[in-house]
Amino acid sequence: MSEPAPFLPAVSLITLGVADLRRATAFYEALGFRPAPQSQESVTFFQLSGVVLGLFGRDALAEDARVSPAGSGFRAVTLAQNFPSREAVDAAYAHALACGATAVKAPEPVFWGGYSGYFADLDGHLWEVAHNPFFERRADGRLVLEPLP
Amino acid sequence: MSEPAPFLPAVSLITLGVADLRRATAFYEALGFRPAPQSQESVTFFQLSGVVLGLFGRDALAEDARVSPAGSGFRAVTLAQNFPSREAVDAAYAHALACGATAVKAPEPVFWGGYSGYFADLDGHLWEVAHNPFFERRADGRLVLEPLP
Repeated sequence: MSEPAPFLPAVSLITLGVADLRRATAFYEALGFRPAPQSQESVTFFQLSGVVLGLFGRDALAEDARVSPAGSGFRAVTLAQNFPSREAVDAAYAHALACGATAVKAPEPVFWGGYSGYFADLDGHLWEVAHNPFFERRADGRLVLEPLP
Repeated sequence: MSEPAPFLPAVSLITLGVADLRRATAFYEALGFRPAPQSQESVTFFQLSGVVLGLFGRDALAEDARVSPAGSGFRAVTLAQNFPSREAVDAAYAHALACGATAVKAPEPVFWGGYSGYFADLDGHLWEVAHNPFFERRADGRLVLEPLP
């Protein structure tokens, strides 16, 4: 057998630093996520279709990486969920706002031929809700651009 | 059939804003990712095992979300790849540094019983490399805490 690659084409876990874990967890539960049983008092895990999403105290996350927690403004990271239609994007955006998300950009047609909007979660993490008619999107929300590695 | 939920427990796409798309793409290719054919001059897509990772100009990403691109410091977001052993974590960390990543925290045992380190990509996005003996990790790098939704 050949040597395994040192780094796989994979993200196992996305962790979002949050100010108030209980509130953030409640927001994501309202959105439609369900905490995994491995969640603890200081961390919430959600088993998503292709990746695990974790919520962890913002300062604790900085401490874990041993970096300063100081930071503000644009984070240059967005998470996206793709939908099978423009109507589904509108419904998701409205649902997120009803759950307490902050409106950032109402869904609208975009130059590349899709339809997209953005909201922010309780801690300012940006989520895009999009319809991309050129990408294969599975019923579980995963995009499949190529055969899975 | 029941109404579909407005928001699925899914992340379809993670987008990282980068200063120099060509350099950032080359870094992730060296790390072990392969650009999907849907990549374009202004955007690179990587089909990962459970999610698509996108690289996009930092300012263009802010513009797409219609937010200010101003921002600095800790982003309160980390991506993680989990490994089957401490040795695999060490190898991944060394490999990332050899590819041009910045050392942030060399892998070490952590209080919860695992082993973890952090590096930053060319744009300062934090990646954790971890071994968690309590989590089921598939050969493709996905964590499976619960039956997939």
